[in-house]
Amino acid sequence: MATAERIRSEVLRARVMDADEAVERFVPERGSIAFSCMAGSSIAKEVPEALARSADAGRRYELTLLTGGSTTAPFEACAARLGIRRRFPYLSPGARKGVNEGSVEFFDCRIGEYPDLVRRGTFTGGGPVDVAVVEATAIDERGHLVPGLSVDAMAAFVDASRRVIVEVNERKPDLTGLHDFYRIRPGVPIPIRGVRDRVGEPYLSVPASKIAAIVRTDRDDEPSGAYSGTAPTDFRIAGVLATFLEAELAADAWGGRFALQLGAGPLAAALMDALPFQGADVWTEGIPARWATVLGERVRGISTTSMYQLPGDVGVLDELVGRLDDVLDHVVLRPYEVTNSLEVIARLNVATVQQAIEADVFGGVNTSHVGTNAHNGVGGSQDFTRAARLVVVAMPSTAAGDRFSRIVPMVSSADIPRQDVDVLVTEQGVADLRGLSVRERAEAVIEGCAHPRFQDGLWAYYRKAREAGGHLPFSPEAALRFAALQGGG
Amino acid sequence: MATAERIRSEVLRARVMDADEAVERFVPERGSIAFSCMAGSSIAKEVPEALARSADAGRRYELTLLTGGSTTAPFEACAARLGIRRRFPYLSPGARKGVNEGSVEFFDCRIGEYPDLVRRGTFTGGGPVDVAVVEATAIDERGHLVPGLSVDAMAAFVDASRRVIVEVNERKPDLTGLHDFYRIRPGVPIPIRGVRDRVGEPYLSVPASKIAAIVRTDRDDEPSGAYSGTAPTDFRIAGVLATFLEAELAADAWGGRFALQLGAGPLAAALMDALPFQGADVWTEGIPARWATVLGERVRGISTTSMYQLPGDVGVLDELVGRLDDVLDHVVLRPYEVTNSLEVIARLNVATVQQAIEADVFGGVNTSHVGTNAHNGVGGSQDFTRAARLVVVAMPSTAAGDRFSRIVPMVSSADIPRQDVDVLVTEQGVADLRGLSVRERAEAVIEGCAHPRFQDGLWAYYRKAREAGGHLPFSPEAALRFAALQGGG
Repeated sequence: MATAERIRSEVLRARVMDADEAVERFVPERGSIAFSCMAGSSIAKEVPEALARSADAGRRYELTLLTGGSTTAPFEACAARLGIRRRFPYLSPGARKGVNEGSVEFFDCRIGEYPDLVRRGTFTGGGPVDVAVVEATAIDERGHLVPGLSVDAMAAFVDASRRVIVEVNERKPDLTGLHDFYRIRPGVPIPIRGVRDRVGEPYLSVPASKIAAIVRTDRDDEPSGAYSGTAPTDFRIAGVLATFLEAELAADAWGGRFALQLGAGPLAAALMDALPFQGADVWTEGIPARWATVLGERVRGISTTSMYQLPGDVGVLDELVGRLDDVLDHVVLRPYEVTNSLEVIARLNVATVQQAIEADVFGGVNTSHVGTNAHNGVGGSQDFTRAARLVVVAMPSTAAGDRFSRIVPMVSSADIPRQDVDVLVTEQGVADLRGLSVRERAEAVIEGCAHPRFQDGLWAYYRKAREAGGHLPFSPEAALRFAALQGGG
Repeated sequence: MATAERIRSEVLRARVMDADEAVERFVPERGSIAFSCMAGSSIAKEVPEALARSADAGRRYELTLLTGGSTTAPFEACAARLGIRRRFPYLSPGARKGVNEGSVEFFDCRIGEYPDLVRRGTFTGGGPVDVAVVEATAIDERGHLVPGLSVDAMAAFVDASRRVIVEVNERKPDLTGLHDFYRIRPGVPIPIRGVRDRVGEPYLSVPASKIAAIVRTDRDDEPSGAYSGTAPTDFRIAGVLATFLEAELAADAWGGRFALQLGAGPLAAALMDALPFQGADVWTEGIPARWATVLGERVRGISTTSMYQLPGDVGVLDELVGRLDDVLDHVVLRPYEVTNSLEVIARLNVATVQQAIEADVFGGVNTSHVGTNAHNGVGGSQDFTRAARLVVVAMPSTAAGDRFSRIVPMVSSADIPRQDVDVLVTEQGVADLRGLSVRERAEAVIEGCAHPRFQDGLWAYYRKAREAGGHLPFSPEAALRFAALQGGG
């Protein structure tokens, strides 16, 4: 009975099977597989475990793995048994080791471009993905999918795949009305003018012939495996940010029109709590599901691709279900090609706050690597920072208990060029870099944002670099000397 | 009589004066001045010389200089006498010395963002620009300006300025019908669907009260001071590019729908001659004026902000005038905020070819600096590479007569992140980086694009860097060793 309510297409009801059978019949040992998810939200639960069981039972996988974004710890535990050779476009903690040691090939394209690259077969040798695994909370009479709490790259995965396995999640309510699937066409403006505009279809159309299997599950999402909980420093930075944003966005240049993009993860969660606005619009790619509690009061509308759980958040799904009408009124879940569209980000006067791993003294930013090791990937940081009207980069001034400065002579991965960074914020303060020359930027960054423990070292570095002359001073020798100050106790 | 034809507003005709008077009355000794131009095209001729004369006569300038883009050698000779303290957003050869030695503060924002930054007073302490100097080929009855051959940041300069000095250029024909001024409004899609669409007004509206002076000139444009002539290597690279683009753009993924953006400068000119398409669309920011000769045959439509002269091009203006109807049919001149709009670039399936100064082994690119010295600035390279559907970066594999490799362990200015670079091309060949991992990219770049003289050194560098481990290998020591291979005979 429950099945008939959730799977309203009779044809497709006949394709319900258990995950082990679906894996056995439809996942090749060598090939490619795509899992829809963002920050672990709405990733399949049954199929990954069935894959792991099949590996234990003797299947020898060599797979290219595409994910929507970061996953969950249980997913990675399964994926570790699948002989992953290539992986795109974003990591989770459990996935880093293979990538950094060299057994897994990886590239972190920017998320806004990812759906088009997937559709063109960029990661699969020009051909289709063998199988896409997506979550739905309902399948309607015509076989259209109503997703769960993440839309991410689902549409591209389905378009690009030979076959689709759908996990129908009956723990979540039927979320019909939450999603907006719009297909981008060359030469045609995306007709979005505000964050709550619905311009596409409320479901994902999939040819019935592509849906190879339907697997039922009644399990809740696990928390995101990519983000840690909110730390005391996050709250301090959030306080600095809130004060800055309140003054900035009241300026005439904004005319009262802006949309906030608060990045993802623990700082975004802390910032949401500190947010000084009433009735703000949010245009983003992922929000903690518990933001559902501020809808209508502080937040008028949210466009996102995913609602995810941070570690420590409990009972979030039930809370969200209890406010479902409110959520449907205020939140639109869209595919990456829309949430991360440069066109729409540029149009909506977005003010973005991005978390970074480190920044150089001129404001160039690394969002993807810790030293030479891949952390997660650039994700949406390269979309929002390049098209937003105001780009604030926020991070603690140090890492690992003040042993390392996050402000450095040179970043290990130059992901966001200095030209995009308007304002740098740490718990030490704000460096407003707009209108400054390159050399003035360096002074503002060291003065305004560096940790006291490293400020003298950074000044010494920068003075040495300036002695060598030039417009964009750099001294490899002085940079190595600064590096030697780091670490230790 | 000529004046009455060109300056059809009686009110404004009364403001015609010579350049010396305009400078004396309306240009402050301390403050800010903006000159509309791109690649030297349609920069004012009389006012800069009058400024230089006034400096010789004892005025002591301390100015912030905003230009539309690169200028001409005669302009820079005048500017050198104006006590320029700050300058934005793009240099020309004559402007580099002060910037690199430290007497002039400079920042190279991306061009697509420049008009909004100018309007918000970002470069002028939050206040207006004191005076904007723009070229017109006519002023209509209502005082609207019909520009010359460059639109660039003119609209923003006029909006942001206290006063405007117009140079009416009578050497050029009245170019009514060539331009399209569209004003971007937050929340509203830019309604462009094809390169020839006209969506705004054919003139620039300026409140008559702002036009302080009108200066007449009958002088032709000088060639761009930023670009050299086309070299033999440019033709070889253009040949490699033409072959690649022909195959690539015939692929199904393009569906026959694309617009070309060929960068600016000598390689773009060579590529135009080698272009394998019939009836192509071009969406760009600057074209050599002599492209007027291929309109209708190889090029169906061009959207650009400027038509400029390369060094060595002679008689171009007369040729263009002889084909004016053809030009008006096929070419639209738009402001930067439209030509370099991420929204429109993304929509039109742009395939861009950008020239670079150097690239790192992973495909990250420097378009702005030679070592630590500013060359010109990122210009539009950061606009087109971030929103185009295909990004090809092209450069010779070496510089200074093969003494320096342009493929290096680390670029001095990380302007275009690796994520944006799809294909790297040198005269040595093509590295198609799409779908490759970071490590595979390094191998493809060294193998496909490095000069034979430096290939062993780059392999030695990269192997050493890989030994240290990590996903994005880097070794500062090995990089210094590679640097030591450079230069010499």
